Amino acid sequence: MVDAALVEALRSGDRRALAKAITLVESSLPEHRQRAQLLIDALLPHAGKSLRVGITGVPGVGKSSFIEALGLELIASGHRVAVLAVDPSSSLSGGSLLGDKTRMEELSRRAEAFIRPSPTGGTLGGVSGRTREAILVCEAAGYDLVIVETVGVGQSETAVANMTDLFVLLQLPNAGDELQAMKKGIVELADIVVVNKSDLDARATERTCSQFAAALSLLRPPAHGRSTPVLAASATRGEGLAEFWLAVEALRAAMVASGEFAARRRRQALAWMWELIASGLDLRFRAQPQVRARLPQLAAAVEAGSIDAAAAARQLLDLAGVRD
Amino acid sequence: MVDAALVEALRSGDRRALAKAITLVESSLPEHRQRAQLLIDALLPHAGKSLRVGITGVPGVGKSSFIEALGLELIASGHRVAVLAVDPSSSLSGGSLLGDKTRMEELSRRAEAFIRPSPTGGTLGGVSGRTREAILVCEAAGYDLVIVETVGVGQSETAVANMTDLFVLLQLPNAGDELQAMKKGIVELADIVVVNKSDLDARATERTCSQFAAALSLLRPPAHGRSTPVLAASATRGEGLAEFWLAVEALRAAMVASGEFAARRRRQALAWMWELIASGLDLRFRAQPQVRARLPQLAAAVEAGSIDAAAAARQLLDLAGVRD
Repeated sequence: MVDAALVEALRSGDRRALAKAITLVESSLPEHRQRAQLLIDALLPHAGKSLRVGITGVPGVGKSSFIEALGLELIASGHRVAVLAVDPSSSLSGGSLLGDKTRMEELSRRAEAFIRPSPTGGTLGGVSGRTREAILVCEAAGYDLVIVETVGVGQSETAVANMTDLFVLLQLPNAGDELQAMKKGIVELADIVVVNKSDLDARATERTCSQFAAALSLLRPPAHGRSTPVLAASATRGEGLAEFWLAVEALRAAMVASGEFAARRRRQALAWMWELIASGLDLRFRAQPQVRARLPQLAAAVEAGSIDAAAAARQLLDLAGVRD
Repeated sequence: MVDAALVEALRSGDRRALAKAITLVESSLPEHRQRAQLLIDALLPHAGKSLRVGITGVPGVGKSSFIEALGLELIASGHRVAVLAVDPSSSLSGGSLLGDKTRMEELSRRAEAFIRPSPTGGTLGGVSGRTREAILVCEAAGYDLVIVETVGVGQSETAVANMTDLFVLLQLPNAGDELQAMKKGIVELADIVVVNKSDLDARATERTCSQFAAALSLLRPPAHGRSTPVLAASATRGEGLAEFWLAVEALRAAMVASGEFAARRRRQALAWMWELIASGLDLRFRAQPQVRARLPQLAAAVEAGSIDAAAAARQLLDLAGVRD
């Protein structure tokens, strides 16, 4: 049974209804999952109309300040901005790499903004699934920009890049050491690179920007007929934010014109369906008693090289009753 | 029943036995698959002792000339060299991006070398599986260097990087346009970059080398305490081959000393087991009549955004009798 009153309130812009809907979507209780799915089904026709922007960067790069400054400018020009923060560390340590979300104090007090940490569950369905659903809920509530913030740890970047239209990498002016802390392949995901905190060192910022631009043009083919934008910004001084937003809008327009925008969303939706199917099959496979009994021994033998990986896979599939 | 005579002949260095064993391993006939697995099981204790080197680069970069020149130098210093060429295009078009393997004419006539195109089947078990097994067969036959050659198309690079100890990217001196033809993420996989055909343009070679070195040091953390080597070479003039081999041996020694060499092989073996399991589960899932009947419609609805990906996944898993 869909909660029609909740849908109605949420659609009319009631922030408490929005918060309640996201809480429902976040819940892992089976009875809540079912209600959440009915809610998503009801909201789906109203979702999909926002621009979804992923933002990542190492701790200390100034993601929150950047998002807050950008968000304040955008709501001043009529946008409604939702910020979902995916923090892969919070479920492990109780602490949080993304820090206290109340840092975006000014933005969080504004009626046109909605800021919410997104829970992480450790599983695929958990981490990505809940955030994906929270995006849909925010869209149905009328937010036209949904920012998903994450930090360069674990698999969260790939997950966020796979649920957003544009993926933005924030960097510090002194690129060397900070970059070392990043996982291989994150630069690869970026549609736009921003060198933030340009106020710290104008010359280092300029140097880092041109190094990045050169490296990206060498290592990556230009997308949508243009090379990856590399921009300087200072969130604290409010510099570079307008230029960043122009770059976002230009990229979006180019992607919409080429059909890549719609194609990327279709690919993401289909890939997500298949990921969930694979995850479901894997969970069920590992839960089978014969597989559970035999797996540790076979995995150890494969690692030790005393049994061929293919032979071990076949044995386990046979135990699970799967034959090809 | 293991073919003991085949194992014996292969182990004693009989090249015809080696060719026959690889043909068996390549066969997709069910009765051959079973014999192949018994053969692999028998050979496994003698396998694993080679250095496995993956080599990739766009068509025209000179992979075959490079491998032939390198192979001739190495057999002169006592090595035994096997070359397996993975060509993702050959099964599609009948043509071949890697070209005619008889190009390595001189090397192929040498008793200490073994050159063989590796068949591609289009499926995961096909492409990667047969080449992985062919590596084991070559190792059991006493080859201490197994080179797996591929071309920058499709998924073959990732597959080859995941079955080798070191992955080498060949580049042309004029980097710009050639790089555009490469898939995103291939540079990311490289342990060593070689700018081949340095004889074409010495200055462009030097410039390309330093551009690559700068880009790699900026975008990638150094592995094993050192940054990714970028070297110039001219296979036709025999220049840079000794330096390349020194870099390979230095990297191997560093990886062995740090434990990364053994760890990478363990990871590869275990990951391969799980890939085969996932592939087996996926195949079986897609083959179920209820899933086959409903899948096209649901996939289209997910792409069109008229059903949530999670809801579609759940419906399909329910149809297949998989519940979580």
